[in-house]
Formats: sequence, C-alpha cells, structure tokens
Amino acid sequence: MMDEEKGKSAEPTTTTTTTRVNMDREDVDGEERDPEANPLNEPLLKRSRTISSSHLAMVGAKVSRIESLDYEINENDIFKHDWRSRSAVQVLQYLCLKWTLAFLVGLLTGLIATAINLAVENIAGYKLLAVSDFVEEERYLMGFVLLTTANFFLTLFAAVLCVFFAPTAAGPGIPEIKAYLNGVDTPNMYGANTLIVKIFGSIGAVSAGLDLGKEGPLVHTGACIASLLGQGGTEKHRLKWRWLRYFNNDRDRRDIITCGASSGVCAAFRAPVGGVLFSLEEMATWWRSALLWRTFFSTAVVVVVLRAFIEFCSAGNCGLFGTGGLAMFDVSDATVRYHVMDIIPITAIGIIGGVLGSLYNHLLHKVLRLYSLINEKGKLHKLLLSLTVSLFTSACLYGLPFLSPCTKCDASQSDCPTTETTGNFKQFNCQDGYYNDLATLLFTTNDDAVRNIFSTNTPNEFHPLSLLIFFALYCILGLFTFGIAVPSGLFLPIILMGSAYGRLLGMAMGSYTQIDEGLYAILGAASLMSGSMRMTVSLCVIFLELTNNLQLLPMTMIVLLISKTVGDSFNPSIYEIILELKGLAFLNANPEPWMRHLTVGELVDAKPAVVTLCGVEKVARIVEVLRNTSYSAFPILDDVDVQAEESVTKVTQLHGLILRAHLVQVLKKKWFTPEKKRREEWEVRESFNWVELADRETNFDEAAVIKEEMEMYADLHPFTNTTPYTVVENMSIAKALVQFRQVGLRHMLIVPQYQAPGASPVIGILTRKDLIAHNILSGFPHIANSRGSEKQT
Amino acid sequence: MMDEEKGKSAEPTTTTTTTRVNMDREDVDGEERDPEANPLNEPLLKRSRTISSSHLAMVGAKVSRIESLDYEINENDIFKHDWRSRSAVQVLQYLCLKWTLAFLVGLLTGLIATAINLAVENIAGYKLLAVSDFVEEERYLMGFVLLTTANFFLTLFAAVLCVFFAPTAAGPGIPEIKAYLNGVDTPNMYGANTLIVKIFGSIGAVSAGLDLGKEGPLVHTGACIASLLGQGGTEKHRLKWRWLRYFNNDRDRRDIITCGASSGVCAAFRAPVGGVLFSLEEMATWWRSALLWRTFFSTAVVVVVLRAFIEFCSAGNCGLFGTGGLAMFDVSDATVRYHVMDIIPITAIGIIGGVLGSLYNHLLHKVLRLYSLINEKGKLHKLLLSLTVSLFTSACLYGLPFLSPCTKCDASQSDCPTTETTGNFKQFNCQDGYYNDLATLLFTTNDDAVRNIFSTNTPNEFHPLSLLIFFALYCILGLFTFGIAVPSGLFLPIILMGSAYGRLLGMAMGSYTQIDEGLYAILGAASLMSGSMRMTVSLCVIFLELTNNLQLLPMTMIVLLISKTVGDSFNPSIYEIILELKGLAFLNANPEPWMRHLTVGELVDAKPAVVTLCGVEKVARIVEVLRNTSYSAFPILDDVDVQAEESVTKVTQLHGLILRAHLVQVLKKKWFTPEKKRREEWEVRESFNWVELADRETNFDEAAVIKEEMEMYADLHPFTNTTPYTVVENMSIAKALVQFRQVGLRHMLIVPQYQAPGASPVIGILTRKDLIAHNILSGFPHIANSRGSEKQT
Repeated sequence: MMDEEKGKSAEPTTTTTTTRVNMDREDVDGEERDPEANPLNEPLLKRSRTISSSHLAMVGAKVSRIESLDYEINENDIFKHDWRSRSAVQVLQYLCLKWTLAFLVGLLTGLIATAINLAVENIAGYKLLAVSDFVEEERYLMGFVLLTTANFFLTLFAAVLCVFFAPTAAGPGIPEIKAYLNGVDTPNMYGANTLIVKIFGSIGAVSAGLDLGKEGPLVHTGACIASLLGQGGTEKHRLKWRWLRYFNNDRDRRDIITCGASSGVCAAFRAPVGGVLFSLEEMATWWRSALLWRTFFSTAVVVVVLRAFIEFCSAGNCGLFGTGGLAMFDVSDATVRYHVMDIIPITAIGIIGGVLGSLYNHLLHKVLRLYSLINEKGKLHKLLLSLTVSLFTSACLYGLPFLSPCTKCDASQSDCPTTETTGNFKQFNCQDGYYNDLATLLFTTNDDAVRNIFSTNTPNEFHPLSLLIFFALYCILGLFTFGIAVPSGLFLPIILMGSAYGRLLGMAMGSYTQIDEGLYAILGAASLMSGSMRMTVSLCVIFLELTNNLQLLPMTMIVLLISKTVGDSFNPSIYEIILELKGLAFLNANPEPWMRHLTVGELVDAKPAVVTLCGVEKVARIVEVLRNTSYSAFPILDDVDVQAEESVTKVTQLHGLILRAHLVQVLKKKWFTPEKKRREEWEVRESFNWVELADRETNFDEAAVIKEEMEMYADLHPFTNTTPYTVVENMSIAKALVQFRQVGLRHMLIVPQYQAPGASPVIGILTRKDLIAHNILSGFPHIANSRGSEKQT
Repeated sequence: MMDEEKGKSAEPTTTTTTTRVNMDREDVDGEERDPEANPLNEPLLKRSRTISSSHLAMVGAKVSRIESLDYEINENDIFKHDWRSRSAVQVLQYLCLKWTLAFLVGLLTGLIATAINLAVENIAGYKLLAVSDFVEEERYLMGFVLLTTANFFLTLFAAVLCVFFAPTAAGPGIPEIKAYLNGVDTPNMYGANTLIVKIFGSIGAVSAGLDLGKEGPLVHTGACIASLLGQGGTEKHRLKWRWLRYFNNDRDRRDIITCGASSGVCAAFRAPVGGVLFSLEEMATWWRSALLWRTFFSTAVVVVVLRAFIEFCSAGNCGLFGTGGLAMFDVSDATVRYHVMDIIPITAIGIIGGVLGSLYNHLLHKVLRLYSLINEKGKLHKLLLSLTVSLFTSACLYGLPFLSPCTKCDASQSDCPTTETTGNFKQFNCQDGYYNDLATLLFTTNDDAVRNIFSTNTPNEFHPLSLLIFFALYCILGLFTFGIAVPSGLFLPIILMGSAYGRLLGMAMGSYTQIDEGLYAILGAASLMSGSMRMTVSLCVIFLELTNNLQLLPMTMIVLLISKTVGDSFNPSIYEIILELKGLAFLNANPEPWMRHLTVGELVDAKPAVVTLCGVEKVARIVEVLRNTSYSAFPILDDVDVQAEESVTKVTQLHGLILRAHLVQVLKKKWFTPEKKRREEWEVRESFNWVELADRETNFDEAAVIKEEMEMYADLHPFTNTTPYTVVENMSIAKALVQFRQVGLRHMLIVPQYQAPGASPVIGILTRKDLIAHNILSGFPHIANSRGSEKQT
C-alpha cells in the first residue's frame, strides 16, 4: 500500500467500519517529518520502530514518497464492462501498438546511444589530442592545465545539470529500475527532464575522464524513453491519443520499461542477447515468455541501428569515432589453449574476484553513506564534491604516467608508438621508438583503456608496477567517483579494476600457463563483476558478446561461478546494497526461514487496525478517510440480512476493495445521491469510463465538496474490486509472501479463519512494506535476536 | 487434482459434509474405460463432455494416468514442526547436497553425451567406410545391401528396446519434461529403464542414419539422470540416505530436473548458455534467479567435460570421432559483409521459415495421428513401421546420389575429393578429381551433412537440383521419421530441412548479396527452427554457440523474429501441438480473453459437488471416500459452537485441506481412537514424521482395516494443511488462473462470497484440469460457439 499517515489517525465513526487502523504513523516516534526535507544520517532512512516503516525512499538525492505498483486484475463493474465490450479490432490495435512501441524504444535507444558515443569519442578525443600535442612539445604544465580545465568544466556541466534540473539522473539508475520492475514506483525517475539530463550529463561526465561508465546511464535512458513513449509524453505534455490509453496501467508500463532497460544494456555493450538476459536475471521480477520475445525484438532493433552506424562511421564520417566491428573489446584473434592445470589460476582469479568484489561492495557502502552526509548539506556541496573528484582524477591520470619509465617498442608491433587518441602503445612523453605503458592505460578514454589492457598477443606490454599503480588508482577512483552527482555507471570502473589484477596474475603465471595475458585481464574483469554484481548467465553472455571469443566461455563460466559463490558468502550484491540504502522496498524471491514461524495474523495484530468503508457510504466519511489517512485502498463492507433458523440476522460481509484513486474520482464527479441507495449499472456507465478510472490521481481537493454534499451518500459498489486476493490469518508469512510476490499484488486482505457473527470479515491488509524482512523484524525483536544468536553459534 | 473417479460416486453420508461431488465421471458418457487400454482415435484422447475431462494422457505410446505436482507449502502440524526443528547444520547439508547433485548431473550428462557421440561416430563411420569401399570398387549392389542391412539391424535394435522395455523412451521427451516443469507428472518418464533405453536406443537410431537427432533424447537423458540422482536411485532400488530425504518433494525435484534438461541441451549442442536459456524459455514455467545460477553451474560442468574429451580425442584416441573445437558447426572463418539491401533476402528467409515451419507442424500433427492408429495395433506394428521407415531411408540415402552428376573439383579446394567419412567433397561413385555433391549431403552422418551444407567459402559446391532433391527427401523423412518408436530428436531434421532452402535462396541471390551461401544455410536452419518451435532468445544463443560467429547475430535475430511471428499466426509451436495431442494438461501463462467473463463459481456449478471430511472422522467414512473417489485432496470441515447474541449456534468452519496420501498414511498406521476426540501434538509426533508424510503413496489396501476399526475415529487435524489458497466464488477464471499458475498450485479452494449459516464454507475445488481452456469450453458450449463465430467474422 505504501501508505503513510499524514496527520492524525481516522476517527472511528461507526462501530463496524473501523476496527484497527492500518497505518504507519510517522508520529509514533513523536516526530513529524516533511517528506521533502532531507534529515538523513546513517542509515540513509531512519526507520520507525513500528512494523511498517516509512514509505519514503531516496530518489535521486532527495527523500520522496514511493508508491507500490499493482498488477492485480481489478474486477470492478466498470472494468469488467470494458473487457466485455472490447472488440477484436481494439485488441488488435493494442497488440500493434505494443509492438510499435517496442520498435520505437529500440530505435530511439539505439540512436541516442550512438549519439552519446559519437559525442564522447569526439569530445574526449580532441581533448586528449590537444593535450598530447602539448606533451609532445614538452610543455607539460600547459598540458596539465588544459586537461584539468577541460575535465573540470565538463564535470561542472554534468553536475550542474544533475543538481539543478534532475537530481534523479545522478547515479546509474539501475537499482531504481530494478525496484520498479519489482513493483515500487519512484517519482520523477522516468520523466523528460531526467532523460535529457541523463543523456547530456553522461556525455559530460564520461568525456571528463571520470572513472565511470555510460552503461548504467544508458540503461536508465532506455527505460526513460520507454516510459515516455508508453505514456505518450511527459506528465504535462501528454499525447491524448486514444490508442495509448490501453497502456495506462502498471502491467503494460512494466513490460515496456523492461524493453527499454534491455535496449539500454544492448546499446551499452552492443550485446543484444546479453541485454535481454541482464534484464531477466538482474532486473525483472516477473517474466513471461511473451515479454522475453518482445524484449528480444527491441534489442534486435538496437543492434541493427548500431550496426548501421558502425558501417556509416567506418567510412570516416564520424570524426574520431573509431572503426571496428560489433564486438567492443574483440579478442577473437587470440587462440585459447589451455590444459587441466590452468584450473588453478582460474580458481585463483575467481576467489580474488569474489573477495575483492564483496570488499568493494562493503567499502562503497561506507563511502555512499559518507557522501550522503555531504550531499544533504546542499547543492553547493554536491557540486564541490563532484569537482574535487574531477580535479583529483585529472591530476592522477595526467601525473602518474610520468612516474613510469619509457619502454622500447617491439619490432613486431607495427603501431608502436602512437600519438593517436586510440592505439595500444602511447608515446606520451617518451622519445620516438619508445612508449609509456601507464599512459596507454591512463591517458586515454575508459573504453580504450579497457581495450588496451585486454589486448592479446602483446606479452610484457605492461610493467607489473604500472599495472599495480593502475589498479590502486582505479580502486580509489572506483570508490570515490560513484556517489557524486553525475550520471555514472558501475560496469566500466569494475571492469578496469578487475582487468588490472587479472593481467597481473596472468603475468605472474609466466610460462606456467599458455593463456594470453589479455585473456587473464578479461577473466579478472569478469570475476570482479561477478563478485560485486553477482550475476552469472547474463554476465557470461555479455562477456561473450563483448569479446567475441567462444573458446573463452568455459573459463568465464567457472570464474563467474566461483566469484559469485565467494562474494555471496560475505554480503549481498551491490545493487541490493544500494536498494537497501535508498530504502526501496524490494521483495526477494525467497522468504527468510523465520518467516515460516510467524503468521500473517500476528503481523496484522502488531499493526494499527484497518480502515473500512460501507458499500453505500456517507460523503463526509469518505472525505474524512481521504483526509486522515493516506492508504491507497479500503475494504468495502456490506451489512446484509441473512436467514438463519427462521430469524433474520444482520451480518457484515466483505464486498471487496476500493482504490483511493477511485474514491477521489467519485468525489470529483460528485456522484452522490441524497438518500442511501444502490444505483443502477447504466447510471455508473453514463458517468464513468475505464479510461478515467485507470488514472492514478490520488490528490483530492477537499474544498470541492460543499457542506450540503457532505450529508449525501455515494454508492461505492461499482468501483469496488469484488475479488481481492485474500489469505487466511493463520497462514505463515512465508506462504503469503509467495502469493504476494508471484501474483504481483499491492494489497492482500487477511480474513479470519472463521468470522464470528458481528465480527469484521477482514482483519487487516498487508502491503509490500509489511512483508519486507527488516520491517517485520523491527516489530518482532525476539526473532531478530534469535537470528543474531544463531549466526554467532 | 488430476483426479478421476474409478467407480461410482461417493454416497453422501451426512448432510453437511457432502454437497456437490467434485469428480470427473468417465462413466457420464455411459462408457467405462480401462486406463491401460488404448482406445485411441482422432483426437488421441477422447474427451468427455463434462467440464473436467479425464486425467489420462499418452505416456510413451500408452494411455496412463497423469498426476499434478504440488508446489504449495503444506502447512500442517507435522511439517510445521519439522521446519521449526531443522537446525542450521541440516540446512547446510541440504544446500551442499543440492550443489553436489547439480555437479553430478552435469558430470554424468557430459560423460554420457560423450559416450553417445563416440559410439555414433564410430558405428556410423565404420559402416560408411565399408560401404564406401564397395562403391569405390563399383560393387554398388553389395554396398546397398550392406548399408541397408546395417541400418535395418541398428533400427531394429533401437525399436525393440523402445517397444519392449521402455515405451516412454520413444520420441524426444521434451514435451513431457515441459509438462513436468509446468506441473504435470507422467509416470515412468524418468526411470532407470527409460534412461538406459534412451541412451542405447539413441545410439542405434542415429547410427542407423535415420532422419533424427540425438539432441532431444539427450535432454531427456539429462532429466532422467537428474531425477534418479535426486531420488537416490530407482523406485525399487533406492538409496535410503538420510540427506536425500530433503529432496523428496516436488519443488526440489523440479529444480534438479531443470538442471538435467539444461545439461542435456548443453551436451547436445555444446552450448552451455544456450542450454540454460532453452530450459528457461521453452521448458520452465517457474523460474528463480537461484535456479538460473544452479542450472548454469550444471552446464558449466558439462562443457568442461566435453572440452576435456575433445582435447583427449584430438590426439586420435577415439577412433573416427572427429577433431574440432567446441563449436559444432564452426563458421567463424567466414567474414560477414552485408549492406542494407540484404534485409530483403533475410526477410524472405524469415517468412519462408515461418510458413514452412507452421506447415511442418500441421502435417506432423496429421502424421502423428495416423501413426497412433498404426501403433495402437500392437508391438509388431510398431516394429514394422520403424523398419519400413529405416528401409526407405537407406534406399534414398544410397540411391539418390547416383542421380546426381559428378562435379569437377575446384583447384582451390585441397580436400577434394575425399573418401573419408567426414569431409566436404565426397568422391562416392565419381572418378578421381570429381565429387558427388548429393553424396556429400546424403552419404554421411547427419551431423556431417549439416557441417557440409553450412560450409562457407565453397560457392557453387552444390548444384541447385541436388539441393532440391535433398530438401524434398528431408521433408518427407522429417515428417515420417519422428513418430516411430525410437528415441528421436526434432532439432536435426529441422536444421537439415531449413539449411537446404536457405542455401538454395543464397544461391538464387547470386551477386545481389555478399553474404556467403553457407551463412544463408544457417539462417535457413534458424528460420525453420523458429517457425516450428517458436523460440527466440535461446535459439539465437544456441546458433551463436553452434556457429561461433558473432557477426551473424543481428541477421539471426531478425530471421528468428520474423519466422516466429509468421508461424504464430498459423498454429501453435510443435511442442504445444504434441502436448495437446498427448493430453498433457499444460497451463499457459496468458489466460484466454473469454476467461474474464466466466467466474470460478460458474465453473464449480458445472462440476459435481466437492467431497469433504470432518476434522475427526469415522474410519469407515475415510475408507469409503478413498475407495469411491480418486481425488487427491479433501477439505476438512469442523462444526464449531459460536456465541451469537447470547445464544450458541453450531456453524461449519473450514479447517483446511488434507491430501489423499496423508489419509492413506493414517489408515496404514492405524492411528485410530475408539471415541471421537482430538489428540495431542506429542501423540502425533510420536507416530508420524515428515519423511513418511512426504511420500506420495496413494494406493491403499482396504483389507488392512478390519471391521472393528471401521467404527473407530481418526483425528485428521494434524495432517491438514490449515492454510490452503482460496479464492472467492465470483472471481473470474482469468484471475484465478493467474494465482493458480504463478503460485504453482495443485488445488485451489473456492469459498462463497458469504457463508450463510448452515451452508458449507467451501463450494468447490479447482484443479489444473479444470482450468485448461478446452476443458472449460467443453462444459460451456455457448462460449466456444461465440468464439467460433467471432473468428469467422
């Protein structure tokens, strides 16, 4: 329900309708909270000690209210009538539109990804070329000033955009999408502002040479495009096209956003299958074969667009945008020869990846908490933080290569040394015929750095000390860059870090192994990815598509499996950590073991009572309930006469569940009658249609209802979902959670095992927040304690 | 519930406990049926006109009773106590064992796949070599006799095994696995007999040169291994290891079988990621991230085993077993150059693939019906059918190449002509320096035929007429081979058919396109696969891993999408057709639109009433219910006193649901009391433990209960699942279906919207069969009619 009480609790007006008030009182702690304020300290969201904690979460850098999504089929009279009357043509329209949208999502994501790539390669390329000229002329200070200034302003550009125009565009956006696909909506995540800032911010931040990738932001970009297309525009300027109305529901929006996210991954790595699998493994909670297919279609469109542009650019039409095929880090020329004993270094890489990955997760968690303290001090602090990181990065990237001695070029390497922006053997400050190995890794774009460190058939290109410096630098940058207020992806920093120790290990193996150093770098990158993000199949396919070398596959699989296993034994994946930190209520697939010992009845007992309404309710009561609670749904009870042993008794019967949005609609339309009576079906259909009711407008202007109307009645039956999913009170939380998550519910009604005469037929409502493990534990400290002691023993 | 009434309906003994009898009367039609008889005619399973049709399905070639699986958490006292008492060590044991099993499944599947490959390559290879010698000596008749005789006896071997020892081993087994993972258990599918027959039958059938693959059987083999390991042996000789007891439930068995199926696909195509995805897209109904990971682990083990054997065999230790890398049909040497206009032939291939694929599905359906008429005539008929197909195949494979003129070898082809079993330019009956293009395709193993037709950089190797003959022959063989009584896979026949028209189209394009003919053949194969099996992502990855050419990916994606779209507009996928034909109740993810107009209450009304039991029930009544019904679960009702307005009334309350297996356990243990009373928890725990209750023994020997015991009572409360999932009677079938499928239920209780005093608190039980679309339509002909008329307009 994601509800939070704004003011005081509802006054019980009748005895039967209000029994226990199901609400999360922020004021239980004796503390009122303004949702827009930012009273953060460690942990980011202070939790109340009631069972259901707040419905606030970090969105961007702000605390906002989050909302739960609803995938239940709402069976009320109006929607039912709509299904019955939907013609075959309309169903066809809907299908066509869905495919068209999937196509457009792919097309636009592909185009935008290409645009971002073009911009980054050219901005960063010309910047590096100019600096390179100064270095060649040995005007080192001028080079430093130029690089630092350029990076400073690029970072400033990105940070200003993020801080002032769309705070939600900062960071990768993947955790929020993951939460969305799990059923938690965060406001302003998929707006036009966010999209534009994400695109330009990402161009700025990546061109500025910061240790971040454009991959995460591209995923978010894809999701934004999908969401905007699905809604037919922004909140304010929305296309009122009739066809688009079919998409005004959580279910279709989820599908189209999944397509968008997959397209984003595909565009980021030029990995169509990897994109689909990433969405499937890492992000999507519900998955259907039909969705798999549609997602696949979107990524196919993306890859065709990318392919076309690569073709176009290979003719030299795109400035410094490189040539090359579809595989970003192609190592298909490397022959992979391995024997049984190679299992030892491969296992070693896996274990190192797992340990380092979980360590990285742990440290990043600490840094993000620290940053949140800085960020909450205000916009200026955010900017300063970003700019400090930029200055530090520029200084290191430019300064460190001077520490490295020059190496003589090998005659077999035709492209050594080079003064181009791309290329594997950078001359930098060295004389002709020599190259600076650290400059090859640092004085270049991140993509090229990866390409260089992955380069095969170049044994001993890098000095171990250079690789160590590179590794240390990127560990520091990787930790301190992610949290700044610019769009930033996690993939590339992790790949850079991982490849360094991978290649180092490969060099250390020496003649023990026949596997190329470059392949070791790839395995290192894969291991750290898996150790931090804990994906397996999707990473495997992404690496396959990135490197275009099938022979590497068995080794990659083993490395990924080992890293994930090792990492999982320390802490959860980085995305789960961020979700937890942001307070986004993510429902995991597997219930905790202790959830089997607690029933939903006990859970409901620990909560305030549920607020119910009558089937034909007084307007004053509706207004009051809307004012005093912020629940998104209310059970509707009816008093009915039943014949029992020749005497007529009155009993209370559950009619269903009404959504807050529908109550607001009833009030807005002033669909009242002076007397208490049920109304005819045609009357309802005259006044309401399903398009209006599909809207999620929950804000309600009290002034609209005048005093006389307060005494009138509204018939709520036609708007009531008569078949809400219910569970019996003695069901374990584990079992209820399975139903809640699998069916994709927003509300689950708890019914008594037997309804005594006169008692309420519904004893509580469970919502997403109620089923989150740590929320439950906060209300049942003894379970938390027994778990703690179990862990110690 | 998958229940079927064996004899007559249960006698209502008390007024409250039996209201409507929920059973599927086979005798409604006035016709008794012996489940082991085979009274088949078109459609394979005759459907009764009641709502729930029979619980019989074709298993192998026999009609058997199928059972539904249960993934619900059974919350009865004994299981609950077991969870509470399970220690951390036991949880660890369980986890270790689960991973060990996944490892063993991978290892064994890999080893068996290698053994099958070795056997096939050597048997078929030496056979072809011998025949080839005769041909070289121009003793054509002797060659023919030798080939035909060898193939005849190999087929005979495979068919005898299948017909006499394990009829369930015939066919691919994939539809049954798909049904299993959807929740339908078929008997004798995963036994030791089936496994052994599958392995040796597959070796025989493939070596016999029949137009079938070893891929489908390998998937089934993997599933068998997994099932046997998970159960700790066969039904009869079972390892009674304590740890294995944790796996005696439907949920864990499902997981391990998924691992087995993935390993099978992986072993078949040497495609680890493709294997995981095939299981995910085509077979698994429920999917969790943890399962994805475990499956991936199994396939990783398989691929390591395969890789090791390839290494071993490349040293020449494996007879005629070929060398080569991990990719089966490697075309990575082909450079892929394409321009925008190539979209036209690619679209053409896609459309052709869709049309031909659906046509193939349609015709195969007809052939399978025809074959079932032949097969039901007896074992001899089955054998004769298989042998006829074998003779026809041998004659064509040997005879047709003589129709083709010899072609002069191109000087650039170093391996032309060849008299080896493998190799692209077969000399056959031609003089030196010439090759017979049709012999290259026909006079070889199926794997090599695919390799040859996929061969790149060999333009004009095949004459169009030869390809046409090849295509026509494999269309005929593909239709008439699949249904015979040997283990047979569908993949290879479809690949062969598809590659033929693909390569033909490539040749027809001539200089219009720069894409290699061999790549066209691959696209053709992909299109027909997609047009018939309707998979996308998994096929894409399988083809990527088969061909090891990433550049082909965008084209493959487009082709797959087009074929699937075209095919879907004609008929369902081949596996769905087989499922339907076999009468396996497969629950689709998407409810039909008309299901929204029908409520579960109406569905229950059209069924016989539900049979209920009392909380403390008379033994005679339990025995009677078990004898007269074959339901697998019964609602338990309790009469309780409630205080209502100062008077005490008796009302009936739903206590929960008891499984048939647990009733049988109670009777077996003779857990009776002379008087009607509830028993203490310790008493139950003394007599029963969860391991016994996890058993699914539903056969009950009536003689075991003596007459005096009949008058005693049994307390059923401790065995009752107190929290069955319930839905309200006015819920639409569509909505109920979502819950049923998503949560993985076997029984769903229907409760009244309001329980009038004296009325039953449960009005029906829905089971899998009740929710299958055509079963519902059989009970509501007006919906079927209105659908028909809608389709016509």
